[in-house]
Amino acid sequence: MKVDGTPLRTIRAVAGGEAVEIIDQRLLPHRLVIERVASADEMIVAIRDMWVRGAPLIGASAAYGVALLMNADAGDAALEAGCERIRAARPTAVNLAWAVDRMLSHLRPLPAAQRRAAAWALADAIAEEDVAVNRAIGEHGLALIEAIAARRPGPVKVLTHCNAGWLATVDWGSATAPIYRAQERGIELHVWVDETRPRNQGASLTAWELGKAGVPHTLVADNAGGHLMQRGEVDLCIVGCDRVTIRGDVCNKIGTYLKALAAHDNGVPFYVAMPTSTLDPKLADGVREIPIEERSAREVTHIAGLTAAGELAEVCLVPKGTTAANPAFDVTPARLVSGLVTEHGVFPADETALRALAARSAR
Amino acid sequence: MKVDGTPLRTIRAVAGGEAVEIIDQRLLPHRLVIERVASADEMIVAIRDMWVRGAPLIGASAAYGVALLMNADAGDAALEAGCERIRAARPTAVNLAWAVDRMLSHLRPLPAAQRRAAAWALADAIAEEDVAVNRAIGEHGLALIEAIAARRPGPVKVLTHCNAGWLATVDWGSATAPIYRAQERGIELHVWVDETRPRNQGASLTAWELGKAGVPHTLVADNAGGHLMQRGEVDLCIVGCDRVTIRGDVCNKIGTYLKALAAHDNGVPFYVAMPTSTLDPKLADGVREIPIEERSAREVTHIAGLTAAGELAEVCLVPKGTTAANPAFDVTPARLVSGLVTEHGVFPADETALRALAARSAR
Repeated sequence: MKVDGTPLRTIRAVAGGEAVEIIDQRLLPHRLVIERVASADEMIVAIRDMWVRGAPLIGASAAYGVALLMNADAGDAALEAGCERIRAARPTAVNLAWAVDRMLSHLRPLPAAQRRAAAWALADAIAEEDVAVNRAIGEHGLALIEAIAARRPGPVKVLTHCNAGWLATVDWGSATAPIYRAQERGIELHVWVDETRPRNQGASLTAWELGKAGVPHTLVADNAGGHLMQRGEVDLCIVGCDRVTIRGDVCNKIGTYLKALAAHDNGVPFYVAMPTSTLDPKLADGVREIPIEERSAREVTHIAGLTAAGELAEVCLVPKGTTAANPAFDVTPARLVSGLVTEHGVFPADETALRALAARSAR
Repeated sequence: MKVDGTPLRTIRAVAGGEAVEIIDQRLLPHRLVIERVASADEMIVAIRDMWVRGAPLIGASAAYGVALLMNADAGDAALEAGCERIRAARPTAVNLAWAVDRMLSHLRPLPAAQRRAAAWALADAIAEEDVAVNRAIGEHGLALIEAIAARRPGPVKVLTHCNAGWLATVDWGSATAPIYRAQERGIELHVWVDETRPRNQGASLTAWELGKAGVPHTLVADNAGGHLMQRGEVDLCIVGCDRVTIRGDVCNKIGTYLKALAAHDNGVPFYVAMPTSTLDPKLADGVREIPIEERSAREVTHIAGLTAAGELAEVCLVPKGTTAANPAFDVTPARLVSGLVTEHGVFPADETALRALAARSAR
């Protein structure tokens, strides 16, 4: 995507495979800083400390981490031990393990002398695949937006939760890809951005992305979505996902379920942008089977922002001694999901359709 | 309610009617400061700048403001002009105009020499009435909590949104009164406190109140409530209200509707604590007829808290130039409301029951 007119990706190889450049997302939205990552150890820090975040981007970062490893030492011992360390950077991230395993099984059989070039080629391919998947999701989601635009004049009013934007991927984003494609097509849009407490990815990342891309948008507290839908201010909800069961139950950022309920209550279509890799055919009942990560209470009790003096500062929002709970995700039952927008098209959130999709992806 | 063992109200007359003491709620939860208000002008500032907030407390504050006015000059001109200025302190607050009008119609016919004593007596009576109403709401709501406690062991798990606590009233609160009464009865409780973005009344006021009263509670982001209900972690929701239509549609703090949807989807009872004065028999369809106040975008884009150095500071949460919408209330349709807990008992949220209640209150 373009930032102030300049094309930018969240990650890219530079200097012919000497290093990788990433956006240090911890500083957004207040500062855009591109960091050069020159070793696997530096990449581990970037993943662990969330300079990069979002499942697809973590996958690509891990792949480039393995490539950086090969720059230093392409021997068997270095490969195995290094991959182990990269895999442990954020143990719960599925895409991280997936990318490391893919790199490892590709590199292991090769002679050490060929591994460096092969590693950079595969890391580039993994990144390009992510771009292609999101581009295709954008194409299929575009059709949904076009259909609404064709029905009546005025902007198509979209609501999104959290950041399933290009910052969470290599480019395009999943939930945002249809929005960016619609904008390219000249369709008039207005996006409601949920701030997405407690980590505020909507307020800090989605609002930044949309602003830089020139997409008209308005930030709202997470509490506001139901009211907006009651008043006819939302034509379409589109969100990302972290895991989808074979029945179509969607695990996504905490609060997604509340928006899906409001969409259902007001007849607003509720779509989930889902790279097929996010489908987990081993799971059926999302509410019962998906473990929900409980994150630090401090994410609820404290918040960082920019002071009037332009300095980043953290403030405490609560009475001394207040305890907080912080479930990071919730599960939206399939019955509330209008459809899953994948790189292969839009699928209903039901077992028959998703078994067919899983079979197709396994081929 | 007691604060660290000492009984406290949000407002009280002191020194035999020389002045009034209030809590400066702008400094909560970080500092508890009791301010002496010695003139009507000072009370206007306290109301306008939200040292005091919450409809019932604003009403009592306005009544004491008129009493303070009489201390300085009990003549006709001073009475009329002063009441006009008090009424204008926050023009949208219904209880403010109601309290000023009640004071005015009581004082106007009296000789100037009798007005000062009469004003203090009536202001005290208005404050005591509020305490009695909330105490009665607590009694009727207690029965709901007792019924759950009787069904099974373990704490009764209550979720509340915003602050309909004693800080919003003279004492007890509306939604919190049943909680405080249950605690007095020795019923084991656990309260989930919605932080209530964007003004965070849950995180800053409800959490403070419950902490000071020793009621076990856990703060959560507004996004978490649906997930908690899906997992069986909520036995009962109880919230306050700003306005209720004759059909039982409830206007309350933004985000209430989303919690009511989640409660309905998960079979969790959803109760609204409603002083009968909040019923507006002139309104029927809440979503269509209740105007929703749009507040400053800055409440969404900026937030204040305590720095590590112990200083109050405000930080900006969003990219430069981000616009935000800030609807302050939403409407929960009557079909999602299990019952209205009033000072006269628990009523169903339907027109027949509410017409009977309105007729009773009018008597």
